[in-house]
Amino acid sequence: MADKLVYFFGNGKAEGTAKDKILLGGKGANLAEMTNIGLPVPPGFTITTECCAAYYKSGQKFPDDLERQIDENIAKLEKALGKKLGDHRNPLLVSCRSGAAVSMPGMMDTVLNIGLTADMIEPLAQSSGNPRFVWDAWRRLINMFGDTVMGVAHEHFEHEMDAVKKSRKVKLDTDLTVEDLKEVCSRYLKVYQKHTKQKFPTDPREQILKSVQAVFQSWNSPRAIKYRAINEISGLAGTAVNVQAMVFGNMGDDCATGVCFTRDPSTGENVFYGEFLINAQGEDVVAGIRTPQEIVRMGDYLPDAYAELLRVKDILEKHFKDVQDMEFTVEHNKFYMLQTRNGKRTGPAAVRIAVEMVKEGLIDQNTAILRVDPMSLDQLLHPSFDPKAKKDQFAKGLPASPGAAVGKPAFTAEEAEQRHAKGEKVILVRKETSPEDIGGMQTATGILTSTGGMTSHAAVVARGMGKPCVAGCGELYIDAKAGLLSVKTESGKVRKFTRKDTISIDGSTGNVYAGEVPTVKPSVSGDFGTLMKWADGARKLLVRTNADTPLDAKVAREFGAQGIGLCRTEHMFFEGDRIIAVREMILSDNEADRRKALKKLLPYQKKDFVGIFKAMDGLPVTIRLLDPPLHEFLPQEEKNQREMARQLKVPLDMVKRRVTELHEANPMLGFRGCRLAVIYPEIQEMQVRAIFQAAVEVAKKGVKVLPEIMIPIVSTVKELEFLLPKVHEIATETFAKAGKKVDYKVGTMIELPRAAVTADQIATQAEFFSFGTNDLTQMTFGFSRDDVGSFVPKYVEMEILPRDPFNALDQDGVGQLIKIAIEKGRGTRPDLKVGICGEHGGDPSSVEFCHRVGLNYVSCSPYRVPIARLAAAQAAVKEATGGSYSTK
Amino acid sequence: MADKLVYFFGNGKAEGTAKDKILLGGKGANLAEMTNIGLPVPPGFTITTECCAAYYKSGQKFPDDLERQIDENIAKLEKALGKKLGDHRNPLLVSCRSGAAVSMPGMMDTVLNIGLTADMIEPLAQSSGNPRFVWDAWRRLINMFGDTVMGVAHEHFEHEMDAVKKSRKVKLDTDLTVEDLKEVCSRYLKVYQKHTKQKFPTDPREQILKSVQAVFQSWNSPRAIKYRAINEISGLAGTAVNVQAMVFGNMGDDCATGVCFTRDPSTGENVFYGEFLINAQGEDVVAGIRTPQEIVRMGDYLPDAYAELLRVKDILEKHFKDVQDMEFTVEHNKFYMLQTRNGKRTGPAAVRIAVEMVKEGLIDQNTAILRVDPMSLDQLLHPSFDPKAKKDQFAKGLPASPGAAVGKPAFTAEEAEQRHAKGEKVILVRKETSPEDIGGMQTATGILTSTGGMTSHAAVVARGMGKPCVAGCGELYIDAKAGLLSVKTESGKVRKFTRKDTISIDGSTGNVYAGEVPTVKPSVSGDFGTLMKWADGARKLLVRTNADTPLDAKVAREFGAQGIGLCRTEHMFFEGDRIIAVREMILSDNEADRRKALKKLLPYQKKDFVGIFKAMDGLPVTIRLLDPPLHEFLPQEEKNQREMARQLKVPLDMVKRRVTELHEANPMLGFRGCRLAVIYPEIQEMQVRAIFQAAVEVAKKGVKVLPEIMIPIVSTVKELEFLLPKVHEIATETFAKAGKKVDYKVGTMIELPRAAVTADQIATQAEFFSFGTNDLTQMTFGFSRDDVGSFVPKYVEMEILPRDPFNALDQDGVGQLIKIAIEKGRGTRPDLKVGICGEHGGDPSSVEFCHRVGLNYVSCSPYRVPIARLAAAQAAVKEATGGSYSTK
Repeated sequence: MADKLVYFFGNGKAEGTAKDKILLGGKGANLAEMTNIGLPVPPGFTITTECCAAYYKSGQKFPDDLERQIDENIAKLEKALGKKLGDHRNPLLVSCRSGAAVSMPGMMDTVLNIGLTADMIEPLAQSSGNPRFVWDAWRRLINMFGDTVMGVAHEHFEHEMDAVKKSRKVKLDTDLTVEDLKEVCSRYLKVYQKHTKQKFPTDPREQILKSVQAVFQSWNSPRAIKYRAINEISGLAGTAVNVQAMVFGNMGDDCATGVCFTRDPSTGENVFYGEFLINAQGEDVVAGIRTPQEIVRMGDYLPDAYAELLRVKDILEKHFKDVQDMEFTVEHNKFYMLQTRNGKRTGPAAVRIAVEMVKEGLIDQNTAILRVDPMSLDQLLHPSFDPKAKKDQFAKGLPASPGAAVGKPAFTAEEAEQRHAKGEKVILVRKETSPEDIGGMQTATGILTSTGGMTSHAAVVARGMGKPCVAGCGELYIDAKAGLLSVKTESGKVRKFTRKDTISIDGSTGNVYAGEVPTVKPSVSGDFGTLMKWADGARKLLVRTNADTPLDAKVAREFGAQGIGLCRTEHMFFEGDRIIAVREMILSDNEADRRKALKKLLPYQKKDFVGIFKAMDGLPVTIRLLDPPLHEFLPQEEKNQREMARQLKVPLDMVKRRVTELHEANPMLGFRGCRLAVIYPEIQEMQVRAIFQAAVEVAKKGVKVLPEIMIPIVSTVKELEFLLPKVHEIATETFAKAGKKVDYKVGTMIELPRAAVTADQIATQAEFFSFGTNDLTQMTFGFSRDDVGSFVPKYVEMEILPRDPFNALDQDGVGQLIKIAIEKGRGTRPDLKVGICGEHGGDPSSVEFCHRVGLNYVSCSPYRVPIARLAAAQAAVKEATGGSYSTK
Repeated sequence: MADKLVYFFGNGKAEGTAKDKILLGGKGANLAEMTNIGLPVPPGFTITTECCAAYYKSGQKFPDDLERQIDENIAKLEKALGKKLGDHRNPLLVSCRSGAAVSMPGMMDTVLNIGLTADMIEPLAQSSGNPRFVWDAWRRLINMFGDTVMGVAHEHFEHEMDAVKKSRKVKLDTDLTVEDLKEVCSRYLKVYQKHTKQKFPTDPREQILKSVQAVFQSWNSPRAIKYRAINEISGLAGTAVNVQAMVFGNMGDDCATGVCFTRDPSTGENVFYGEFLINAQGEDVVAGIRTPQEIVRMGDYLPDAYAELLRVKDILEKHFKDVQDMEFTVEHNKFYMLQTRNGKRTGPAAVRIAVEMVKEGLIDQNTAILRVDPMSLDQLLHPSFDPKAKKDQFAKGLPASPGAAVGKPAFTAEEAEQRHAKGEKVILVRKETSPEDIGGMQTATGILTSTGGMTSHAAVVARGMGKPCVAGCGELYIDAKAGLLSVKTESGKVRKFTRKDTISIDGSTGNVYAGEVPTVKPSVSGDFGTLMKWADGARKLLVRTNADTPLDAKVAREFGAQGIGLCRTEHMFFEGDRIIAVREMILSDNEADRRKALKKLLPYQKKDFVGIFKAMDGLPVTIRLLDPPLHEFLPQEEKNQREMARQLKVPLDMVKRRVTELHEANPMLGFRGCRLAVIYPEIQEMQVRAIFQAAVEVAKKGVKVLPEIMIPIVSTVKELEFLLPKVHEIATETFAKAGKKVDYKVGTMIELPRAAVTADQIATQAEFFSFGTNDLTQMTFGFSRDDVGSFVPKYVEMEILPRDPFNALDQDGVGQLIKIAIEKGRGTRPDLKVGICGEHGGDPSSVEFCHRVGLNYVSCSPYRVPIARLAAAQAAVKEATGGSYSTK
C-alpha cells in the first residue's frame, strides 16, 4: 500500500483529481476535481479505498499510519476554516461519507454533524443565536451516529421522537420547540447508552475515527454485498471515506439543499432538472420524506444562489463532457457543491444525450458510442401502453422511470420475490423503498411508491434497473399487512386493490391504471437510428439472431439482424398436430415405423423452413438439427400419458414403459443432439430433407436462400464423419429431383469441452463453428443451469464468481476453451466461419470478448440485436482508441 | 495404396515376414515367416489388409489390379505344386481364410476345398482311388461356399444331411456310403440353387474371387464388429485373405489334424499341450464337434509325423521366443504347418511362462514385463473355491479356463444378457458356444458346455475373457427350451437344475457343483512375486489405491499400494446410526442445528480415519471431502421417508418437502462437492476436524501419518481461496490443543474442464492435483455415466469411439485437458504432486498415458493395484526400449 492514505481538498487546491476514482472513489475524486477547477466546495479530505482494503486484510484494523494522517488533515481543515475541533464557540463540524469507485446510491452510510459534543451544545446554542438549529443538529448526530456507527436501531430513536411529539401534540419535527428538542436529545442519549452500554463519545476525534470505521464496515454490509451482486460489480478494493466540513441547508429560509441533473435523466432533453428544499439537510431530499420543489423554481426563493448554481452546472457539464448529477447546499445564501457525478439515465435519455452532445460538438461519435450502456437500449425496445386502449386510471404519481408494467400488487420486497419465484408478475407497491428492498425491486415488473420524488431511492434504483417506476403517488393508501391498496376517488368513493387484482403503471407518465392495459411495440426514435448507424459503422462483428419462427425472424431483421445464427428445430415439434407424429416416432421400436411417423412430420418442417427462408431472403440461416433428448417430447404426468395413448391408439402401459425407458439421471449429459442422429439416422434425414426441399422451393421463386446446417452436441469428429456424408447425399438427391441447386454449408456447434480441444480434427469436417456457450458453460463448470440456484447467487455475492456465468461469458475458463477452439479450428481451416449462439451473444461484456478473440458473428434473441450491435461497436472503438467501457 | 496387393509364400521363400502383421495379418505374416525358416508349409498367397480397406473405401469393390495379381499368384502356386486349377485329374485345391493383424478366433469365415467343380468330381473320384473322400470334399465345399460366401443358412444343408442319414438309418457322417454322399451332394446343390437362384460356380477362379470377397465381407459382419467392440480392438484397416494349397487330414488313418500349444496355456507349465484327431479336417478340432485326443498320444498313431511336430514346435518357440499356438495337418504321414501364432494364455500361465522364459534365457526381464497383459493378472487375484468347503459335485468336464464361478443357469446368450442386466449372476450353459454367443459369455460369471475340447470356441474365448469355463462336460443333458440341465448319476437317478438353481463351476479342475460353493482368496504364486518385483524395479509411476475402509486399505497394501489416492468420506455416512445424524443435518434449516447434527457425526468420522491411518502407517492418505449432492442421503421412497420421519421425530411432510427441495434435474452438475462446503462451511469443518483429531491421536501412538486433504469439484481458484484458510485454521487449532503437529497437504481434484484450463490459478492454492477422470470424462464429453448405455456401446461398435471412455482414458480429448492442467499447474508450482484417482487409474492403456504425461502416481481399486504396477512398468520399459505393448 502507498504511504499516502489521506488526500486533502480545499482552498482551491486538491491532492487528487477526477482521474483518481479507483483510489479516492467517485465522490472523492470529483470533490478534488471541483476544488481544483475553482468551484465552491467545502474543504475536507478523502481516505483511500486502499485503506479500506487494508482494513479488511488486517482483520478489520486501521492501517498503521492512518490515524496520524487523519490528524494531520484535520489540522489542515481547521486552518483552512479557522475553526477548531471540539471548540465550544467555533467548532469544526464534519460529515463522513462513503464513496466507492462505482457509485452505489443509498447503499453506504453517512454521518453528519460530527464534532458536536454534549458539553458544547449549550454554549453553542447561546453563541450561535440559533439554539433550535444547534439542538436539532445535536439530535441528528446522536441518531445517525447511534444508528450508523454503533448499530442502534433507528426505530428506538424514532420511538422517543414520536413520544415527545405525541406529548406535545404536534405532528411535524419543525413544530417542536427548543425545549422539546432538548427533551428529545436527552431521551436519545439514554437510548444510546442503553443499547451501546457506552456514553456518547465526548471526544470529536473519536467520533471521526469511529465514523470512518463505520464506513469501512458498511462496505461489507449484507445490503452492499447484495447491491454489488445484483449489479454485478466486482473487483473493487473497497470504499473511500470522505470527511468534509459541514455546511448547513437547514439554518433558515436563506438556506436550501438540492439534487439536480444538468439534463433530464429520464428523457435526455437538454433542460435543467432536479429538486430542492428550503431549510433542509441534503438527506431530506434523497430520502424522499418531504416532497421537494422543482429546481427551476429555486430562483424565486434564492436568486443569487440559483444564478451560481446555473453557472456551476454549465461549467461542470462542459468540464466532464457528460450529464452531471449534482448535490448542493445553500447556507445563508452561500452556495456550496457537495457532489457531482455522471448522471445515471434511462436508455432513451442516454441515446438522446449522446447524439445531442455530438451535435453540440461536446463529444465525438466514438465517445457517443461508448456513452450508452448497451443493456439500457432494452428500455427503448420494450413495449409501452397502447395509447388507443381504454384505460381506467385511478391515480397519478411522478414519472420516475419510463416504461409500462403490468402485475398484481406485492406489498413487501420479500413477498415480491416469493411470488415472482412462483411465476407471478408483481408490481412492488411501497410507501417508499429502501436499500433492503433491492431484491424485490429486481423481481417486480414495476415499482409504485406513495411518497418520495424523482430522486428518491425508488426512482434512482428503478432507472438503474431499467424498470418502470411511478413514485410519490401520494393519494394511495397502502396497508401492507392487510395486503390492500386503496385510493379515494374524486366522488369520495374508495377503490380497493388486493393481491389478486391486476394493475398497470406507466413510468413515463406517472399514470396508474386498474386492470391490464394492452401494450404496443416501442417506437424507436431518430436519435436511436443515428446512434445505431454510427455503431454499425464502427463495429466489425456481424450480429445475427436466434429465431425459430418467421415472426421472430422478421422482428430481428427489423432490429438489424444480419442473419439467423440459431434456428432451433425442436420448438417446431410441439406445435399443433405435429407433436402426435413426433410421439408416434418416439414410440416406434423399429426404423420402418419411425420413418412412417417422420414422413408425417416432413411437410410441417418444410413449411417452417419456407417461412423462415422467405423472411431472411438474402441472409444466412443457421438451422440446428434436433437437440433435446427424446423424453422431452413425452408427457410426464399420467393424465397426459393417458391422452397420448388415446390419440396414438396404443395401450397406456406402452406409453409408460417408453417414458421409463427414456428416463435419464442427467438428461443434460444424455442421449441428445447428434447422438440421436447417429443412432437414428432417419431423424436427421427427415430434417435435412425438409431443409433442402424448402430451400429449392423458395429459391425457385427468386428468394436468395443461404442455409447452414448445424449439427449439435458433437464430441468427436467421427460423429461428423458419419453424419456429414448423409447430409450431402440428401442435398444432391433433392437438388437433382428439383432441378435446382442452392449453396449451403454444414457446420457444428462447439458446446462440449471435448469439441473445443479437438477443434482441429472437427474443422476437417465442419465448415463453420458456432459456440453453444450455454452448454459449454454447463460442461466447463460442471453446472446445471436448472440446478445452480442453490449456490450460484451465493457465489456471486461472495465474489467467488464475478458474475453469473450464464449471463456473462466466463472469459477465464469457458473463454479459454473458445480461444483454443478458434485457434485449432482455423489452424485446420483458415477461412472457418466462427460465431456464438448461446445467450451470451446478447451480453455486452461477452460481445466484447467475442470481438477480441476474432469471432465472425454473435447471435442473440431479437430484442437483444441492437444491444449486440452497440456492444460490438463499443468493442471495436475501445480496441481502436483504448477508450474506457463503462458509463456507469 | 501400395501397388503390391498379393504376397506369395512357398518353396522355402516368402515375400513377407513375421514383421508384416499389419499388412498381411497375423496368420499371413507367420505363414510367410515359417516358409522362410524352412518349415513345411503348403504354399499359397496372402491378399493384404490394405486391399480390404480399399474394398470398403470404394463401396465394396475390388481394387483395380487385384484380380490380375491373384491370377499371377495362382499361376505361381500351380507351378510350385505341379497342379492346375480346374484340371480334372490333378486339380489345384485351395483354402481361403481370413486373418487380421489381431487374432480373432472363430470370428471370420473360412472356405475349404475351393477348386472342385461338379464336372471334375466323377473323374477325380475314379482317378484318386478314394471316391469317398472326393465326394465328401465336394459336399463340404458346396456347404461352406453356400453358407459362408452366398449366405445360405447352414441348417438347410444340415436338414438334407439329416434326411439322408435318417433314410439310411445311420448316425455318423462317416457311416454314409459313397452313393449316400452322392445323394447328399445332389441335394446340397439343389439347396444351393433354390436359395441363391444361381448354379454352383463351375469356374474355380470364380470360386476363389467370391471367397476372397466373402472374407472381406466377414470383416464387417455383426459378430466381427461385436467381437472388436467387446475386445476394444480398433484402428485396424481390415482383414487379410490367405489363399493356400489344401492339404487333407481326412484322407484316411495315416492322416490327422491338430491344434497345440508349445506350453500349457492354462497353467503355463512347460509341457506340450493340445489335441489331434485322426482322419479329420482342421475345423473338426476347433469346432468341438468330435472330442479329440491329447496331443502327447499322437506318437502312438503317427510316430514320424509326431517327431516332425516336436521338432517344429521347438524351432517355433525358440524362433518367436514365445509360446506358440499351432495348427497342423498330416496328409498320408506327411506333416504340414497351417498356422502358428503367439498362444493366448490365462493370467497365471502368462506370468509363469514369462518368468520361466527369463530363467531359460529365452527372453530378458523387460520382455517378460511386456509379455503379461496386466488385465490378465485379474485371474491371479480373484477367488477360487474353498478347498475345505463341503461340495456336492454332480459332473466333471474339461478345465478350460481357470477360476471359480457361481450362478444360475442361463440357456441362451440372450437370456444370460437379459438376466445379467437385471442384476442376476448367471452361468451360461450351452451344448457348445458360437461366436454369436459372445455377448452372453461376456455377461455370464462362467461358461459350461457339454461338447468341445480345450481349444473349442468356448474354451478359447473364455480364457481370453479371463472367465471360468468348464468345457466338454459330456454327461450333461441340456434342454434349452425347457430351461433344464440334467445329469444321470451313477446310481441311475437323474438330478435336475432349473433357472432357479444355483450351480458352481471350477474352471481350474473341471468340476461342477450343485449350490453355491464358498470361495477363498487367491494364493499368489512365487512367479507372480518375481514378476512384480521386476515390474517395481522398472516403473517410475507410484501406485496408490482407492480405499474407503481400513479393510480395503489393508488389502491394497498387501497388493503393493504405496498410499491411498482416494478415500471417499461419504461412503462412511451411510453406515449404521450415522445416516440418522446425516439426515438430521440435511433437514436442518439453520447453521446451529446443522452443527448439532454434525457434532454427532464427528466421532464416527474420526474413528474411520484412525483406522485408515493405522492401516497405512508411513504412507500418504488422500481424503476427499464430501462429494455427492445431499439428496443422495435422503430416501426417495415414501416407505423409507416415513421411517426416516419416525426416526427423526419430524412430520413426514417435512421430509418430503426437503426431498423435493433438494431434487435436481442434473445432479451430476448440481449442488455437490466443494459447493456444499462453500455454502455450508460447517460440513467441511467437521470433516477436517475429524481428520486432524484422528491424525494427532495416531501420531501420538507412533503411527507415521501423512494426511492429504482433497477438495472436490473445484471450478475456480476462488473456492479454494475461501476454503483453504478454514482447513489451516482447524489444523492449527487442533494441533495446539493436542500439543502435537503432523505434516499435511491440502490439494484438489481436477475433474471439471474449467479446473483444468485454469490450473495455473488453482495451483496457487492447491499443493497437489488429483485428476478425477470419471467426472472429467463426463464433463468433457457431455456424457452421463448413468445414461450412456443408450449410445456409447453402439458408438464403440461403429468405431465412433475407439473404446468406452469410462474404461480407457480418452487421450485425445480428456487427455489433452490433463496435459494442459499439468503444464499450467507445474508452471505455477514446479513441485506440484499430480495423480489420478478415476477408475482409469487401473486401466493399462490409461496408466501408460499417465506415465507419459509425467504424473507422479495413479490410484485404483485394491484388486487393480498389481495391474497398475505392471502397466506402469510396461510404460517405463516401452519408453526406454521402444518395445511393443500388446501381447495379444
